[in-house]
Parts: sequence; C-alpha cells; structure tokens
Amino acid sequence: MSWVINAGKSRHNEDQACCEVVYVESRRGISGVSKEPSHNQGFSFYYWGLFDGHAGGGAAEMASRLLHRHIREQLKDLVEILQDPLPPPLCLPSTPGTPGVSKPSQLVSPQSGWFPQKEVTHDSLVVGAIENAFQLMDEQMARERRGHQVEGGCCALVVVYLLGKMYVANAGDSRAIIIRNGEIIPMSREFTPETERQRLQLLGFLKPELLGSEFTHLEFPRRVQAKELGQRMLYRDQNMTGWAYKKIGLDDLKFPLVCGEGKKARVMATIGVTRGLGDHNLKVCSSTLPIKPFLSCFPEVRVYDLTQYEHCPDDVLVLGTDGLWDVTNDSEVAATVDRVLSSYEPNDPSRYTALAQALVLGARGIPRDRGWRLPNNKLGSGDDISVFVIPLGGPGSSYS
Amino acid sequence: MSWVINAGKSRHNEDQACCEVVYVESRRGISGVSKEPSHNQGFSFYYWGLFDGHAGGGAAEMASRLLHRHIREQLKDLVEILQDPLPPPLCLPSTPGTPGVSKPSQLVSPQSGWFPQKEVTHDSLVVGAIENAFQLMDEQMARERRGHQVEGGCCALVVVYLLGKMYVANAGDSRAIIIRNGEIIPMSREFTPETERQRLQLLGFLKPELLGSEFTHLEFPRRVQAKELGQRMLYRDQNMTGWAYKKIGLDDLKFPLVCGEGKKARVMATIGVTRGLGDHNLKVCSSTLPIKPFLSCFPEVRVYDLTQYEHCPDDVLVLGTDGLWDVTNDSEVAATVDRVLSSYEPNDPSRYTALAQALVLGARGIPRDRGWRLPNNKLGSGDDISVFVIPLGGPGSSYS
Repeated sequence: MSWVINAGKSRHNEDQACCEVVYVESRRGISGVSKEPSHNQGFSFYYWGLFDGHAGGGAAEMASRLLHRHIREQLKDLVEILQDPLPPPLCLPSTPGTPGVSKPSQLVSPQSGWFPQKEVTHDSLVVGAIENAFQLMDEQMARERRGHQVEGGCCALVVVYLLGKMYVANAGDSRAIIIRNGEIIPMSREFTPETERQRLQLLGFLKPELLGSEFTHLEFPRRVQAKELGQRMLYRDQNMTGWAYKKIGLDDLKFPLVCGEGKKARVMATIGVTRGLGDHNLKVCSSTLPIKPFLSCFPEVRVYDLTQYEHCPDDVLVLGTDGLWDVTNDSEVAATVDRVLSSYEPNDPSRYTALAQALVLGARGIPRDRGWRLPNNKLGSGDDISVFVIPLGGPGSSYS
Repeated sequence: MSWVINAGKSRHNEDQACCEVVYVESRRGISGVSKEPSHNQGFSFYYWGLFDGHAGGGAAEMASRLLHRHIREQLKDLVEILQDPLPPPLCLPSTPGTPGVSKPSQLVSPQSGWFPQKEVTHDSLVVGAIENAFQLMDEQMARERRGHQVEGGCCALVVVYLLGKMYVANAGDSRAIIIRNGEIIPMSREFTPETERQRLQLLGFLKPELLGSEFTHLEFPRRVQAKELGQRMLYRDQNMTGWAYKKIGLDDLKFPLVCGEGKKARVMATIGVTRGLGDHNLKVCSSTLPIKPFLSCFPEVRVYDLTQYEHCPDDVLVLGTDGLWDVTNDSEVAATVDRVLSSYEPNDPSRYTALAQALVLGARGIPRDRGWRLPNNKLGSGDDISVFVIPLGGPGSSYS
C-alpha cells in the first residue's frame, strides 16, 4: 500500500515511512494490581507515518522508529477511559495504577452543580495524546542530539486508527486527503512560512531578541534597498492581512523574518516548513541565530469517524509528502485513484499497491531529452516522493 | 434600513450605529500642486457601522462619530492608486503630494527581474487601510481617555462599499451575513474567549507578567480546587486542541486566563469579547491588572465583489449585534428575510426598513406573563439589539 522513491534532490532518500499495529496495555494492567481484569484489557491501534526529512535523515529516521511508541505511552493512561461509554472524568486520583484503585470514573465525586464545567469528549483525549506525543518525540530529539547525532528535522504526517476513528495528525507540508465516492475530503493543511506568517511575525514582535540584529518581523513584498530609505513601501505587520505603505527606516533594511512565495517562501531565509520534529541545531546561514523557536512541533489533528459512512472498496485515504503534491493536485490524485482502482477487481488487494505506485511514478514523470517530464510535459518532482494508500472499505481494510 | 432597540440589560442603549456617504479627496489634490487634475478626482465610499458598547457608552459613541473619518484618512493616499488599473506600486516617493510629482506608478523604476516580489492587489490595500484605521481609532481613544472620558469599549462591525466591492470588517461578536437567492453567505466570524483561546493563551505563555500572580495560561474544564492538589486533571495549553491529564500543582490553582463556555466565556473572569475598540481602563475585578493587552483592535476583513453576481431585490446584507444573534440563527434570519420581503412589492423601498424592524422585534419577543418571549416560547434577547439591512440589488441600492 505504500511507495517511496528518491527522485534525486538529495543523495539519500530523506523520506521515511512506518506502518504498525500497536498494542496498548493499560498502565494499571501493567502494575497487575487491579481487581477488575475485564477493564484492564488493552486495545490496538493501526498506525501509518510519513516523515519527510530535511538537512539530514536523522530526525525522520528516529521519528519513524519512535513516534508511535510515544503515542502508545500517552494512550496507556486512557485505556479504560476510552472504552468506557461514560464521559471522561475531569479529575483522576494521583497515580495511575494505584493499588486498590478501580474504575476512575467511579472514584471521582460527582460534580456539584454550582460551578460550570466543560464536557470533554473521548476524541479530544486521543487528540491530546497525539499532540503530547509529538512534543515528547521532539524533546527526545533535543536530549539525544549530541549523543546520537540526530541530524536535521522532518515533517510528520501520521494516521492513528483507533476505536472506529481515523486521527490524522500533520506537522509540516505533507498532505492527507480522503477520496470517498469520488469526493475529495481534505484531512490536513500545510504549515509553511506563508500559511503561518502571522504566528511567526507575532512571535518575532513579542520576543524581538529571537530576531537578533539581522531580522525584522515586518513583511515587505520584496527586499527593501538601502537607496530607498525615506521612501514609502508596502508592508504587513503581524495583525494585518492587508497591505499599507510605511516610510522606510533603518530597521526596515533588515532581512524580513518571512519572505518569498510558494515553494520559495522561507523563515529567516533558511527553512520552508514551519512545523515538524527536530531541527534543534538549525541556525541561520552564517550566523548563530537559532531557528527552532519559530518552528512548532505540534500537529493539527483531524478526526474522521469511519462508522458514520458506508465505504466502498474504492474509498481511500491518501497520504503524500510534498514531492507528490508539488506536481499533483487533489483532483488529479482523485482521477488516478479512479483510473487505477477501476482497472482491478474490487477484491484484489494488490490494487492499492498499484495505486500507490502509480501516484509516485506519475509524480516523478518519465525521462525525456530534457529531464523527467510529466504527461503534460511539465517537469516531474525532483524531491523525494512517498505515498500511503489506506483502503477505507476494501479487502485490505479489515480494521474497519 | 436600520433598527435599534434597548431591551433592558443596561439603563441606556450602549449600541450605536452610523451610516454615511464619505467623500475621499486625494492628499495630492488637497496640496493643489498636481498637474493632472483628472487623476486627483476623489471617490466616495458608502459606510455602515454597528458599535456594541460595554461598560459604558463612550467608546461606541466615539467610534460611531470618528471611525469612518480614520478610514477616509487612510484612503486619501490611495485615491489614484485604487483607480489605476495597473497593480499598486510597491514603493512610492517619500511624501504624498510632493510638488511636481505625478503618477506614482510611473515614478517607481521598473522592478529588476532578479529579485522576487509579491503581487499586491488593490483589494488588499483597502483591507490594510481599514485595519490601520481601526488601530488609529483605538489609539485615539487611549490618548483621549482622560480628557474626554472615553468610558468602556465596543465591538465594531463596519461595511465599506468602494469601487464595486463590499469590505466587511468585524472586531467583536457582532455578525454579518449575505442572503443571496435564499443562500446564506457568512461575512464575518465572532471573536470571543472561546474562538481566540489559543491566541490569548499564547500571549499569556510568552508574556507571563501580563497574568500577574492571579492567573494561569492553562485551561481547565472547571475550576481546580485546593483539595485536588496532587491529583490529575484535564488541561489544554496554548498548542493543544485536545485535552490531556496533568498532575495538579500550586500554579494550577490560579484562576484560568480563559474560562467558561458560550455566552459565559470570559477573559480574566471579566470580559466576553476579545476584539474591539477602547477598554483602555479595563481592569480585572478588584485588581490593578489591565485586560487591554489581551484584546485586539484589529478586525477581520472579508471582501465581497458585488460585480461578480446578479443580485435581485431580495438579496441583502444583514448586520446585527449579538443581541440579535443570541436568540436567532442564520437560517431563521434568512426565513424572516424571505417572509417579510415577499410581503412587499419589490420596488417598495420601505420593505427593507420593515425587515430590519421585524428582525429586531422578533429577537426581542413579546411580553408574556413571565418576561419577553419569542414565538417558540424561549426568552427574548435582553441585550441591546441593532440591525442593518443593506439591499444588494433593490431600489435602495443605487450604489451598486
């Protein structure tokens, strides 16, 4: 169901992938003291991860080995709570697995009615577990960067299938879409200097020490030139979505924190993605200024309830690194899904592998006289290209 | 076309409204030195503003008198640029109206091709002008708060109709929707402690001094009690959309920066809207801690191109303060639009006034034995209720 290819940008493939079935044992089950074995039964989750590395393969490799373990650790405390139809308790006793402690939801005194409380869903606990797992993974990379030489950073796009729901977590510029009955359902958005401009500018504005003496948090439509001092130039600050003119002062000659457009957009003239794992050693080119404070390790998590829809064997979740999406849009992927899957029998499990292969090779193109070309004669992707195809209703989707 | 009512929450109506046709004269026209009179012709914009005051009527009253003048000031520099079909120049000479200076776009040397530049649209200059006008209005309130006793603050929802486009700018919890051929098109979103939770928490996290010793930037689903110290409670920090458990420490007993749900959500236990003008004197109850640093005066501006659609006399833009939307949803408003307008001749201009009146009175309800009630017997709005109905294709819409 997955295909990965190195299309030449880097010597080694910096994309990594991981696909696992992970069993989560309750922390209370581990301590072996509970009196209710039926509530100590763990559960499994299905897991797919795509890690698009940059500036070295270390972070992507480490994340592909360990991120699902961090997710498992975070879920261990939730085994009973997620399987209990009652709403999650807002407060729990001090230690998970305390001897003599049985159902957490019974332990908590019923809430008195006079103070307002929010209802928290089971889903949002899984989302919180994944969010914290990303952060702990990132912190582990920071701790081990000296010893183990965690080089570079990586975008991370992972899917957790748990108790009937798909949790799609994205930190970076990979993308996930569901194709259901020919319809495209976006399951992620990209985090780039352009889409996160205002978050980055706000941080630079509130913590100017992070900009050193080299950068300004203001955005300009192009580099300001010294000879333009005193003239009026278009700018945007962190609160604006529109543009206005300002008189150019000396500070405006500094390099803008965010500059460029599309694939060429950069933070501090260095990096083109604003979320992901690693990059703890990343510095501005020929400077000691760290870039990590502007990068976020937190994913955006979207939830898709598989039980809410009837799925046919042609319904799939497609994950791809930017190597795919740079040259292929959602509609073209949906067309390829339709074309490839319809050329196989619905119960032939190899149809999904064929689809992943078709998507990767289609994005790479075929060699012509002047480089690798797509059928429309545009240049093929020069980046690493990785694709997961996850069937939602076919023979390969026994989990659903 | 507008109706305002005081439904009893405050002694005086704290809502204010403004409707004007504003002529913008070029700054270069004013200086009287231009050699090309045809390019000095100004333009007019149509303007509607709703200002929902709180903690006093001063800010709403001041904004209703002055905000459109700040918008006019910001537009003065753009008179020629907005009427020139060429893309706006990125850089202009130092002073607007410099003697001998003619068309700005000719003054700027053509961009050399080797450095990348962004294209900036005419629309985004108007958006930037409105954004900066809100900020200058807010700064003027800060300056004059002592002398003129600008009391309280206000939400601001304004519409600027200029050169074929509606610019809808919202800072607060008022709402604008377009009803076009029965379809509902949202033209704003509300800014409340719930919708802006992550922005508020991030600011508290980056600038903890703003929280004093009384508040924590973490969110909890209910108040943490001292006796729960050491137990594990659900929380969210500024990076999370999901929830997780954390061990309760002493800091977690502080009051949360953001708490409550829906209409009861509050920043620092005090204010239920997070954007608007004024509030420079607002302090946390029985404390000297200022709340203003957490409030934003910047609106979100959405653009609607009237020339892109055919509009019929039943198509309208409806603006309402939260007094309307607390008890009426978009669909109910659309149904009222349909019901009231269809009971009048299409060319009867009084139909829009009747609609505004119906919306306001419908939200207030009628007096029964136990308070003001809606037809469905729910309580009517106890808040001030203000509504603008702006025809997009009818006899009152000569601007389009």
